[in-house]
Amino acid sequence: MSKACVINEKDCPFYNVAWGQTKGILAAESVASNPDLQIRITEYKPFWEHSLHVHPRQAEVIFVLSGSGVSETQEGRNPIFPGCAAYIPAGVEHATLNPNPEPLRVLIIKSPADLQK
Amino acid sequence: MSKACVINEKDCPFYNVAWGQTKGILAAESVASNPDLQIRITEYKPFWEHSLHVHPRQAEVIFVLSGSGVSETQEGRNPIFPGCAAYIPAGVEHATLNPNPEPLRVLIIKSPADLQK
Repeated sequence: MSKACVINEKDCPFYNVAWGQTKGILAAESVASNPDLQIRITEYKPFWEHSLHVHPRQAEVIFVLSGSGVSETQEGRNPIFPGCAAYIPAGVEHATLNPNPEPLRVLIIKSPADLQK
Repeated sequence: MSKACVINEKDCPFYNVAWGQTKGILAAESVASNPDLQIRITEYKPFWEHSLHVHPRQAEVIFVLSGSGVSETQEGRNPIFPGCAAYIPAGVEHATLNPNPEPLRVLIIKSPADLQK
């Protein structure tokens, strides 16, 4: 568990993932981490379609910072845009899609942090 | 524990508090809640100075959406502005200050949610 601090996302390096790029803000790879919370900024690349997947133990919130996209669960698809928070309880199949030509930039919040992953 | 959903912050009503206004996004008063996470949007009013206080059991992250301010702990004061995340472990005395004439708008993330409060 880290000490109190202020983390500027500009000091956190992105790394590439299949769905675009991501960086830890409060995360195992960041300057501060906490077992109860993982916070990261992810940019889904244009025209990306995640397939449905599950985090068995983690609740997740995807808060849109810029761009727009779609949050999918087995109950359907919902548009997401700045100011929207997609809430995914642990164990629920979900996916995030970016059908647009601009990146979809989101704050991802998970609890617990699951630092082993 | 609520089902998966998309919450638009525009559908969440602000209510007044001493330090400005606040609204639950994933919170006891919102359409969705989770025992592990509380997420809210708070606007600190111009020239507000919170006094140091403690959440004994909750880790907290204050992610700045717009405006700028100061995050204070007993170790000192640090400026916060859009893209900054102030991380406060459980049990650490802290305060948020807005010394400016514009509201300081932040996303507040706490774990656990502490729904009784």
